[in-house]
Amino acid sequence: MQKSLLNTILSPKELRLLNQKDLPLLAQELREFIINIVATKEGHLGASLGVVELTIALHYVFNTPEDQLIWDVGHQAYGHKILTGRKDLFHTNRQMGGISGFPKRDESVYDAFGVGHASTSISAALGMAIASQLKGDVNKQHIAVIGDASIAGGMAFEGLNHAGVTDANVLIILNDNAIGIDPSVGALKQYLTNVKKGTQRKNNIIEALNIDYSGPIDGHDIDKVISELKRLKTVKGPKFLHVITTKGKGLKQAEQDQVKYHAPGKFDAATGDLISKTPSEFTKYQDVFGHTIVELAQQNKHIVGITPAMPTGSSLKYMMETMPHRAFDVGIAEQHAVTLAAGMATQGLVPFCNIYSTFLQRAYDQIIHDVALQKLPVIFCLDRAGLVGEDGATHHGVFDISYLRCIPNLIIFAPRNEVELRNIMYTAQLGLQQPIAIRYPRGTGVTVDWKQPFEKIDIGKGVQLKAGNNLAILSIGTMSKNVTEAILDLEVSHYDMRFVKPLDDTLLHNIFKKYQTIVTVEDNSIQGGFGSAILEFAATHNYKNTIKVLGIPDTFIEHGSVTELQKSVGLDVQSLSTMFSGLI
Amino acid sequence: MQKSLLNTILSPKELRLLNQKDLPLLAQELREFIINIVATKEGHLGASLGVVELTIALHYVFNTPEDQLIWDVGHQAYGHKILTGRKDLFHTNRQMGGISGFPKRDESVYDAFGVGHASTSISAALGMAIASQLKGDVNKQHIAVIGDASIAGGMAFEGLNHAGVTDANVLIILNDNAIGIDPSVGALKQYLTNVKKGTQRKNNIIEALNIDYSGPIDGHDIDKVISELKRLKTVKGPKFLHVITTKGKGLKQAEQDQVKYHAPGKFDAATGDLISKTPSEFTKYQDVFGHTIVELAQQNKHIVGITPAMPTGSSLKYMMETMPHRAFDVGIAEQHAVTLAAGMATQGLVPFCNIYSTFLQRAYDQIIHDVALQKLPVIFCLDRAGLVGEDGATHHGVFDISYLRCIPNLIIFAPRNEVELRNIMYTAQLGLQQPIAIRYPRGTGVTVDWKQPFEKIDIGKGVQLKAGNNLAILSIGTMSKNVTEAILDLEVSHYDMRFVKPLDDTLLHNIFKKYQTIVTVEDNSIQGGFGSAILEFAATHNYKNTIKVLGIPDTFIEHGSVTELQKSVGLDVQSLSTMFSGLI
Repeated sequence: MQKSLLNTILSPKELRLLNQKDLPLLAQELREFIINIVATKEGHLGASLGVVELTIALHYVFNTPEDQLIWDVGHQAYGHKILTGRKDLFHTNRQMGGISGFPKRDESVYDAFGVGHASTSISAALGMAIASQLKGDVNKQHIAVIGDASIAGGMAFEGLNHAGVTDANVLIILNDNAIGIDPSVGALKQYLTNVKKGTQRKNNIIEALNIDYSGPIDGHDIDKVISELKRLKTVKGPKFLHVITTKGKGLKQAEQDQVKYHAPGKFDAATGDLISKTPSEFTKYQDVFGHTIVELAQQNKHIVGITPAMPTGSSLKYMMETMPHRAFDVGIAEQHAVTLAAGMATQGLVPFCNIYSTFLQRAYDQIIHDVALQKLPVIFCLDRAGLVGEDGATHHGVFDISYLRCIPNLIIFAPRNEVELRNIMYTAQLGLQQPIAIRYPRGTGVTVDWKQPFEKIDIGKGVQLKAGNNLAILSIGTMSKNVTEAILDLEVSHYDMRFVKPLDDTLLHNIFKKYQTIVTVEDNSIQGGFGSAILEFAATHNYKNTIKVLGIPDTFIEHGSVTELQKSVGLDVQSLSTMFSGLI
Repeated sequence: MQKSLLNTILSPKELRLLNQKDLPLLAQELREFIINIVATKEGHLGASLGVVELTIALHYVFNTPEDQLIWDVGHQAYGHKILTGRKDLFHTNRQMGGISGFPKRDESVYDAFGVGHASTSISAALGMAIASQLKGDVNKQHIAVIGDASIAGGMAFEGLNHAGVTDANVLIILNDNAIGIDPSVGALKQYLTNVKKGTQRKNNIIEALNIDYSGPIDGHDIDKVISELKRLKTVKGPKFLHVITTKGKGLKQAEQDQVKYHAPGKFDAATGDLISKTPSEFTKYQDVFGHTIVELAQQNKHIVGITPAMPTGSSLKYMMETMPHRAFDVGIAEQHAVTLAAGMATQGLVPFCNIYSTFLQRAYDQIIHDVALQKLPVIFCLDRAGLVGEDGATHHGVFDISYLRCIPNLIIFAPRNEVELRNIMYTAQLGLQQPIAIRYPRGTGVTVDWKQPFEKIDIGKGVQLKAGNNLAILSIGTMSKNVTEAILDLEVSHYDMRFVKPLDDTLLHNIFKKYQTIVTVEDNSIQGGFGSAILEFAATHNYKNTIKVLGIPDTFIEHGSVTELQKSVGLDVQSLSTMFSGLI
């Protein structure tokens, strides 16, 4: 390996021994290192490229890991990982058994706080800062680096609102690149744009919240950033530094197409050109949603679409392009998204509110209190339900069945394929008098010819997919695929129950009377999930059948490919087949 | 009944026929009416007294119910209810079968959006306003009335951030009285105080968010309020009116002791003097918490206490008074409260985070993502778990066992009495290496002599309270009391399982081997709750016992006394006794 500055940095200690004039060269090497690895190993690119100088400056100026450094969301923390002893592991990023794509306390003492979801860093840093204060540790620094998309999340405002009345030693660095995964939205984004342009000269929101504001400064001018950080290190109490960066900085294509290069897949490290994958014959579920909502909205003028900051990830972007007045990206604001939908539903609109399963956790109270309690017919589309793969523990959508199932008035449906997804979307907008949650996974479907004419689905009705003896397997959603493959050579019955709620009581009575042994299969927590609903049915009706519940065990699941993770929890085809065979 | 203006107001239609000069008299009558009823029937007093003029002005100027009027939280909506056709029902307020203490869509067309939890009104009003815009209904008005405590909640900021980039016809009225239930806190409160004092002349947060700001105006000057509302009615797009009011206005004691007169219980309508209740021999669970945390914190210097805006309701106020640097009221900011606690825990503090069960729904993602995933030993104290009584559907804490049970690494405990609450608090701060949720109800305990020396509780261990044959009853938490009374004359066994998670497997194996029939009793949803955990245990170990799960059925429970509500769901002593007898 060629001699380089980067190779000498085993930890921030070595970094701090460098001459400041050498740091631009280190920045260049760090940027190249990130590009080279991500080009072949995949991962999040643009965010980390944008904070290379800031990352170096932070570790150069502050005494990490004593000083606590928190990266909001963590997409931007690759440089941080590489400079804090994980350079030689970085090629294992996001792979099973490798390092996580996000900062993680278990992984390194330099990862002061685990992240993945947005807007948590200010609260965490403030908690640490108050703790240091109570312990008399007056020189310890606590730094939150938060993007302009994340700081718009309500939780970040709650943190600022508290910070402003403390004298805790917390530094909030706004990494303002005007984009999250998709371009930032909202009044705060507009405000920040005006600050940058210089047209916003009065009405400083941060100062109004009693926090020492400085900036904006150029986040790629490493000397400027260092000098400002050094100054702020001497300022006591809460302070805020506004830093302007360019997402994807240093790779031309990444700067130009920031959405695509957020996580571009494989690309040519030298040219930046994307390496096209062999196109799948199958369509992503998100695209089935995205195209279907457009199709339905063309027929039903009451339909509107809502996404909290995921137009690309949810594919609501198709509707935003086709009918911009009826499709809303509200930014990282899941709580608002849900209650906005509730408000719209009171006026007769038919809102499709698309939120990743893991992020819907942010709007749990709003589902209960604003939607279900009022029985408002909001249609929740939960993308990324089940195991999501490489994003890991912070992103798996494996709790939604459990946390939604206790909510009265709510229908819960999981399509086993694209046609079912389309048909439930069609059914839901026909005039449902109550809310519905539709959960479907990340990735592609199973049906080439999925664009079939719409058919109405009977609410609460399951279907039998295979008839056999011995054993009844009850699956929910796309776990149907693994089950189908697992029982190819087995004489068992397979039912897709489709609805977690309401359950198909008639079908269940038939099943419980016919089969002694019943197995439930879901990619949700076993605790309180679909299988648990079947157990409750059995207890209510005093059935004594043997029931085996398969699903996600009571532990957080790490990162890896979906197939690897399924295997680790016994939900892959081979494990299922072995399990079923043993029960016959 | 004496001739009065108020008696002529059957709906806002009659109100709008009055001369503006008669409105102060109407305000006086309305205030007296509220005071007279609440004095004997109890309920929330101060908030409604503070907005009497604003309420009259809103219905006078706007065309309700066509124009959509949303009261954030809804404590302040008594005047609204009385003026919108519910005057003669108002004496049934908060009683079973009577009107709700909060606005409720089912109850009246004038209640545009059901409320109870804070900070939802801006999102809901904006959703309605966008809907009107899409439907071409350009003259329709959409008004959110939100207090200065509620607007500090992150969700409200998310709503403002969206509103500022729309041209939707939404009017946000800030009812600024500097108090929620307890005095408001935070930087925004300080900012608003400075605005009122005139020292804050620049840095207008609302204008920075691109929303038309006006005010502050005196909310008790009815002519001023009407003229400002009339002007704003002609302003298109999002606009914001800052109104200054006094909570408890018009009743001297209520103005002077705003915390106590938020919901004062019975009082003398003429003098305002509180009518002292016969003191209970028992202590409220909240006070057991409040005194015990002080006691523990005096011994363990790492203990800190956190409440989101409920110092009085949670009784954390005792710690705030005794050791103000270690007890934090963070305002209506449940998300921040939880992640602040997580940040503190990383630094070795022992945070007790006290949040009502129903409000913890607001911080669900933070429990999973910031606390449990990182296995941080935050101690959650969930007050108001189970049925809360008169506050009704928005406030019952009947989902927490279900939504917490699927979270890995989390211990869930429910004390059956005050001693158990004290002992689990003691145990939790001894150096637990994972988070714990402790749920306990509203109201008083069952033990006069509860201040016993602390004893450590074995994590995951249940206890047998009564030995018998025939039947094993497994209860959790304070349902133990009803069960104990219900089985006084029955030869059955009763176990307090104490821990919903981890379950006491050893004890359960003994129970399942000894008793054919097992009944579980909890004041949580049957779906996914404690009983469901027992069903999962039985399925895992292939037990075929008959298991009967008692709890809250799959429907929202309305308001009424706890006893009445328990009866309605079969959890009162008599219903339980009948149920158990039938199973022997």
